[in-house]
Amino acid sequence: MKIVVQKFGGTSVATEELRQQAIKRIKEAREEGYHVVVVVSAMGRKGAPYATDTLLSLTESIEPNLPGREKDILMACGEIISGVVMTAQMLRSGMEAIFLTGWQSGILTSDHFGEARILSIKPDKIFDELKKGKIVIVAGFQGSNEEKEITTLGRGGSDTTAVALGAAMKAELVDIFTDVAGVMTADPRLVKGAKFLDKLTYQEVCQLAQEGAKIIHPRAVDMAMQRQLTLRIRSTTSPAAGTLITDKEKDNIFAPQQRLITGIAHRSQITQIKLDISQLSKPSEIELKVFKAMAEAGISVDFINVSPRIIIFTVDDTVAPKAIEILKSKNLHPDVISHCAKVAVVGMNMMGVPGVMARVVEALTRNQITILQSADSYTTIWCLIEEKNLTKAANALHQQFCLD
Amino acid sequence: MKIVVQKFGGTSVATEELRQQAIKRIKEAREEGYHVVVVVSAMGRKGAPYATDTLLSLTESIEPNLPGREKDILMACGEIISGVVMTAQMLRSGMEAIFLTGWQSGILTSDHFGEARILSIKPDKIFDELKKGKIVIVAGFQGSNEEKEITTLGRGGSDTTAVALGAAMKAELVDIFTDVAGVMTADPRLVKGAKFLDKLTYQEVCQLAQEGAKIIHPRAVDMAMQRQLTLRIRSTTSPAAGTLITDKEKDNIFAPQQRLITGIAHRSQITQIKLDISQLSKPSEIELKVFKAMAEAGISVDFINVSPRIIIFTVDDTVAPKAIEILKSKNLHPDVISHCAKVAVVGMNMMGVPGVMARVVEALTRNQITILQSADSYTTIWCLIEEKNLTKAANALHQQFCLD
Repeated sequence: MKIVVQKFGGTSVATEELRQQAIKRIKEAREEGYHVVVVVSAMGRKGAPYATDTLLSLTESIEPNLPGREKDILMACGEIISGVVMTAQMLRSGMEAIFLTGWQSGILTSDHFGEARILSIKPDKIFDELKKGKIVIVAGFQGSNEEKEITTLGRGGSDTTAVALGAAMKAELVDIFTDVAGVMTADPRLVKGAKFLDKLTYQEVCQLAQEGAKIIHPRAVDMAMQRQLTLRIRSTTSPAAGTLITDKEKDNIFAPQQRLITGIAHRSQITQIKLDISQLSKPSEIELKVFKAMAEAGISVDFINVSPRIIIFTVDDTVAPKAIEILKSKNLHPDVISHCAKVAVVGMNMMGVPGVMARVVEALTRNQITILQSADSYTTIWCLIEEKNLTKAANALHQQFCLD
Repeated sequence: MKIVVQKFGGTSVATEELRQQAIKRIKEAREEGYHVVVVVSAMGRKGAPYATDTLLSLTESIEPNLPGREKDILMACGEIISGVVMTAQMLRSGMEAIFLTGWQSGILTSDHFGEARILSIKPDKIFDELKKGKIVIVAGFQGSNEEKEITTLGRGGSDTTAVALGAAMKAELVDIFTDVAGVMTADPRLVKGAKFLDKLTYQEVCQLAQEGAKIIHPRAVDMAMQRQLTLRIRSTTSPAAGTLITDKEKDNIFAPQQRLITGIAHRSQITQIKLDISQLSKPSEIELKVFKAMAEAGISVDFINVSPRIIIFTVDDTVAPKAIEILKSKNLHPDVISHCAKVAVVGMNMMGVPGVMARVVEALTRNQITILQSADSYTTIWCLIEEKNLTKAANALHQQFCLD
């Protein structure tokens, strides 16, 4: 059975016009001979009446500590409502379609309400309906545990549902539809010359996503990579092929890629915190104390750089005042630079290639941009800069690595 | 286990203030030593964002013929959202509570989507949670069939859930909370002297409900009667005992009731249609033709009075033009009186008491009210009158039977 799983995000199902576009994409897949499984998110963005956050807000003002079990039941309604509306639209357009909740689709999860992991999928009911010639619409982001309690999947939600279903059903492809026509070399709002990428590896897209490019959830990519399931990032409003995500160049199915750098990602609203510990006794105890205090306060720290003389890390601008207060309460006096941005150069092929960092430094210094801090892995080089320099930095790096 | 099932309608859970009142009622029951099962309807009346009709309207404009299966899944979200909000409110007020969907409560139904009947209830999960000392909140109006498809119960919805749960769990009482403090002898908007009734039999309340008094669904009453389950109609905003519905006077638990008539019910916006068939050949064939044509057009007929010379029946004002058109298309020429009302005198004790009809006629004619048509069963006498006479008629009958 030739199967494609097509996932439509919240904005793709929010209006009748967009749902019509989504149906065009589904019809195209049918014409290409695919059996189609459609996965939907809750309708609309933040604030829409049936969006996840709006449903949660119904109880948040009453009881902020609602148990995860009840929260999940409430949230699950978002994708159910969205899925039934999408089913109505498909029936209207003359297609045979049936809607299934997560648990009706055979999605068994762990017990972690709000953050459940998919343990197994028994897609018997989906197969039955596909064999009858129907399009099957599945509510994303949800399943049930062994006790038949409704659960939600947390981070990556509907993307994870789509990929897990694709793997369980041995789908040929999983299409992730969004409001852009694929993955770009950089944010086009920052870099005019940003281009769409035809193809990416799982690691590349994962890095780009982790560095702030809102494409697909890394957890879903990771699952696709493990199962060697081909993903496509596509636009709901265009029949274009979008960006293919696969490792299959190894198998020579696709031509090998020669590019050194895949793209430039960025994240802003970051505060750098620097602690000079050279004058203090037992610096390692201080390190422990600092990071423990941050963890206890629920503050995520990033870009950590520890040396015998100095501790450097970053936090989001929004939690910076809290972090500083905690440090001062421990009699530590940090140097703080707020309104910073992280710019990341991402590429699988930079591994073992000398001089990449040198080219990064060259591009930034040539433009009088100070690098406040840097870090690198074998696929990514990050630089912390002042936020006011972000556009200039992204463009300089984009040109430096010939992505235009 | 001493159990009470407390059902709160859509308006009783629509605002925080009303939910607080509902919680007062639940706490009172706990203080009386009851284990409490709470059944909720969808939040708010027609038009509220999470009310049943609003959820349905999301698909109605897209595809008016949505399959019953998908409609039921969509509608079920209304009671789920309402139930979780109510649970949040209870937790907030310091009570231990858990929410269960219809199927999690073990409610097994027939396959008739939109009109499913409860086949059995396995309330194991509810008992487990009650034993832990929790209040159990159950989504009304829903269950699932043997194939684990979500179903809704149609007419009587949450009332039926409450009574069926009460029966399955051998509850001592089922409280039906509404926005009035019990059942009245007549509609207080029509009859100034209308009073609350302390106690009614199932048949009486059933008759009153069927004749337009919007108290509790007759289907739920019928089920309570079969199981001899005591109901109470109460107000969410008051600790008053409300109206008790039981047949138990037989057992001398309650004092026997002496009243002849329980109350006056009414329904308006009715059109009377009269067909003179005395000049036509084969009148019985015409009868068949008329009622078959009405049935095929989905028009409910009522107050049917057939004789060799004349056919009389009533329909709602709203469908009257369609009914008349159908008759004319069959070359029949009805006499029509629109804007009529039906006034009903209801009472279990009128059985075998002579002269009740005479007293009805006396009360109406004394007030110059023409009886257009009448009918009677052993518990009810109906009169069709012009709608403009309704208030006068209701008051006259209320006085005539000393209900003031």
